[in-house]
Amino acid sequence: MTKILIVGGVAGGASAAARARRLDENAEIIIFERGEYVSFANCGLPYYIGGEIKDRSKLLLQTPQSFFNRFNVEVRVQHEVIKINRLQKSITIKRLVDNTIYDENYDFLLLSPGAGPFIPPINGIENPLTFTLRNISDMDRIKDRIHQYRPQHATVVGGGFIGLEMMEAFHHLNIKTSLIELSDQVMAPVDAEMAGFLHKEIRDKGIDLRLKAGLESVKYDNEQLILQLDNGDSFHTDLLIMAIGVRPDVALAEQAGLAIGNFGGIVTDAEMQTSEPDIYAVGDAVEDIDFVTGKSSFVPLAGPANRQGRMVAGNMLGHKEQYQGTQGTAICKVFELAVGTTGKNEKQLQKGGYRYEKVYLHAGSHAGYYPGAEIVSLKLLFSPDSGKILGAQAVGKKGIDKRIDVISVAQRAGMTVHELQHVELSYAPPYGNAKDIINQAAFVATNLIKGDLLPIHFNQIHQLSPEQLLVDVRTPEELKNLGYLDGAINIPVDELRERMHELPKEKEIIVYCQVGLRGNVAYRQLVNNGFKSRNLLGGYRTWLFAQEQ
Amino acid sequence: MTKILIVGGVAGGASAAARARRLDENAEIIIFERGEYVSFANCGLPYYIGGEIKDRSKLLLQTPQSFFNRFNVEVRVQHEVIKINRLQKSITIKRLVDNTIYDENYDFLLLSPGAGPFIPPINGIENPLTFTLRNISDMDRIKDRIHQYRPQHATVVGGGFIGLEMMEAFHHLNIKTSLIELSDQVMAPVDAEMAGFLHKEIRDKGIDLRLKAGLESVKYDNEQLILQLDNGDSFHTDLLIMAIGVRPDVALAEQAGLAIGNFGGIVTDAEMQTSEPDIYAVGDAVEDIDFVTGKSSFVPLAGPANRQGRMVAGNMLGHKEQYQGTQGTAICKVFELAVGTTGKNEKQLQKGGYRYEKVYLHAGSHAGYYPGAEIVSLKLLFSPDSGKILGAQAVGKKGIDKRIDVISVAQRAGMTVHELQHVELSYAPPYGNAKDIINQAAFVATNLIKGDLLPIHFNQIHQLSPEQLLVDVRTPEELKNLGYLDGAINIPVDELRERMHELPKEKEIIVYCQVGLRGNVAYRQLVNNGFKSRNLLGGYRTWLFAQEQ
Repeated sequence: MTKILIVGGVAGGASAAARARRLDENAEIIIFERGEYVSFANCGLPYYIGGEIKDRSKLLLQTPQSFFNRFNVEVRVQHEVIKINRLQKSITIKRLVDNTIYDENYDFLLLSPGAGPFIPPINGIENPLTFTLRNISDMDRIKDRIHQYRPQHATVVGGGFIGLEMMEAFHHLNIKTSLIELSDQVMAPVDAEMAGFLHKEIRDKGIDLRLKAGLESVKYDNEQLILQLDNGDSFHTDLLIMAIGVRPDVALAEQAGLAIGNFGGIVTDAEMQTSEPDIYAVGDAVEDIDFVTGKSSFVPLAGPANRQGRMVAGNMLGHKEQYQGTQGTAICKVFELAVGTTGKNEKQLQKGGYRYEKVYLHAGSHAGYYPGAEIVSLKLLFSPDSGKILGAQAVGKKGIDKRIDVISVAQRAGMTVHELQHVELSYAPPYGNAKDIINQAAFVATNLIKGDLLPIHFNQIHQLSPEQLLVDVRTPEELKNLGYLDGAINIPVDELRERMHELPKEKEIIVYCQVGLRGNVAYRQLVNNGFKSRNLLGGYRTWLFAQEQ
Repeated sequence: MTKILIVGGVAGGASAAARARRLDENAEIIIFERGEYVSFANCGLPYYIGGEIKDRSKLLLQTPQSFFNRFNVEVRVQHEVIKINRLQKSITIKRLVDNTIYDENYDFLLLSPGAGPFIPPINGIENPLTFTLRNISDMDRIKDRIHQYRPQHATVVGGGFIGLEMMEAFHHLNIKTSLIELSDQVMAPVDAEMAGFLHKEIRDKGIDLRLKAGLESVKYDNEQLILQLDNGDSFHTDLLIMAIGVRPDVALAEQAGLAIGNFGGIVTDAEMQTSEPDIYAVGDAVEDIDFVTGKSSFVPLAGPANRQGRMVAGNMLGHKEQYQGTQGTAICKVFELAVGTTGKNEKQLQKGGYRYEKVYLHAGSHAGYYPGAEIVSLKLLFSPDSGKILGAQAVGKKGIDKRIDVISVAQRAGMTVHELQHVELSYAPPYGNAKDIINQAAFVATNLIKGDLLPIHFNQIHQLSPEQLLVDVRTPEELKNLGYLDGAINIPVDELRERMHELPKEKEIIVYCQVGLRGNVAYRQLVNNGFKSRNLLGGYRTWLFAQEQ
């Protein structure tokens, strides 16, 4: 009889326990969970605080009793595993209700402790009004505080997933909110110009967004906090959420001498086996192989955790299943917008020294003539050599998850942008487009690789030389209503053929329109008439939102 | 200077003209369009009749003038091409406004005439109250008739895309509607049990749905029609739409002696070249290579037409781009539901003699604890040998397009169900699930291939032998509220372990639950305890809706 001990009973641990039982009726399986709850919906916590989720019990996916009834798995909550005894193949556990300590032997040990909020050593940060959000108890504490003290103002430090979701939760509760982010953008998985759409949305909702600002010190005073920022600003707040990031929970693994990686996570092989053969690890505490680069990375996401958990149970019980790497596919709701990403972003590609090209597009979520279409803004990164998809980012009110998921699967399958041209996506006016933005992005990327298109990007448009001439090919009404780039002259695309003689052949004509489509028509016309030209990819819209920093 | 003539100015023809101009500024490009309009949104026509689209001008994507201004393409509307003169490389055109006839030479000719509604020779079918819907003029005629005569009752013959959309349009206008379909299901691209969800929805909306019924004769009497069906039924209606299907418009091609295929469409190679080297053809008039079978097929859809049109322009102008085959990815709105499909359905696989397996799943469109999730019902077909994805069908209120698109891309990339297990889809509670239904379907399919799961299907459940025992593992409340299968005994999954001794080891235990998940837990428990067992895939829900015929 195989005895499997599992440390941590949320995503990875719970998945592993359930599958282990499905594979082996006789195994002894015990989950140790430090907290009071097992298998809770940790991604739902901010939404319960904000009130979108009304029924707290919906977050508790399993109880120790239900887990036992269905899977014959014993769940010991409020049991903290404090030591791994490798040689004895046992762990030492502290029962938190009475602090008694005991050992339990294992044949296989699974570490699924997750990752915890990181709080830097800020002066005054330990106070009754500062919270982090990791589990049900944290959630209850924040909810209780709000309920009892009715804060007028809340501050969130950190513009990642949890920070953005907590910002929205406070807004939903009509609490004035400040969001403080050290870098020049929220939502680090996307690039700054794509985050621009989020910055606009966040400011439009009345959030006090402070980018490039660090929290320097906190002073607790009369049921309020005075926050001092590193840019000299200071203000009062009634509640502070620290959400600058998470760190893998590796205390146990370190103590046991398991290999720890450069990102601070547990190192495993593709079967999720640690450096100790009988010890496996999954989820937010481990480092993953990046699908694109093949290198180690730390990407704490629920999807990989769940799939790793399911897989590792098989590997303990004689299967040989291998984790295939993490793309980092993710999505976040930011008020009316969704922002999604898969693969590598431009910052990462630059840092890693990879060769890449990129295209920007903006197109309707479904046919424009059918009611309710919204603009999807897409950035696609690809190799100019192989054509392989390197990454994608999208923002908009509708259809973001679909586009990111389609590109994620295309990337995982090793598709090139040439192949992506041919994908056949479902089309009827309420759902899509006969040429979807994904096909269009692949068309533009392929044109770029083939040399049928010479691009210019939003961040190069202000460095034009005297040998370049900026031409806005939209209608005069658009320039008037939507604004235009400094120094541009206006020749609407539909007049270009007859007014081409106004343009100097010796200069490079930099054309742009609203989203890049008419710009491409103008570009091709110019090039085919012997002009040098470039088209601003994604057009004025990409440039405009990139200014929202 | 290359001279390109294009017959047909909608999806394929318009795309080809625009790209030809982008590639070659000097080419002479002329589009001949029999109708009054060019480049209109033919997929939007039913929605304008139904009133969802209010502004008729939104359907007119281009006019001859706008096409000329932007692309220097001449569009000759109300010009019918009546003959191809292959040897002279010219076409003969009739100007419909004055019936004058003239010839025009070409270097390349593109046939993009589309497909027209097929009307069988039914007695009395030619009358002022019977309509088909192909173009703007058809739409205007139907809209005018409704506006002037305020019909109380309308009948649609044919349950395909246009039939279903017209049914919904009439319902939207508060016109009582009958839908008559010759086969045992609407929406032929999906299998009958998946169409069951649609039948329920259609009946719930008060539509008089008549399956397995053919229209035998029509009698026009006093501004009404009396319809006689082949099942003996007869009733009055005020308006009749014939939408039983379309046939490729190949009169010109046939007259010119171009190769026509078994499905009645123009035969082309992968570069969309017909049997005559200077003549190309695209869109609904051509036969496509089926992506899955590699055989010829007739799949008139807007996506392929648009992409073929874009591609063929390149091929005329020196590129060598090849069409990669059609999967038949499609979607249709049926009231609150969307129904989508890609690849082959089970009927087609059976008919073609292909080996296949299938799984059914029902899961939330996003995390169940976040408001607004709806059930996605998915059928996945795959090869039990290679694991390759053969096809997928999905029905539900939300997230159908996304699932079909993801599987469509996975299929096109040649992914197996083993690989599909690992796809990384975007997850946050408002958008998805940590284990999406696509991952889950791949898990079940892989279990099935590996022999970790022995399935039984909804249509085998009534043919149980005395050696089999049917066990419902849901709760007694579910049986009471949702119904159950005749002859089933009830042992809730959470009681199975302690009540297993009640079951006979010599019989095969057929387990089922609501959607198949708990059934799998019970199945694994039984098998691991030495029982023979099978699990009903998709559970009671799959069986229940399959009864809606």
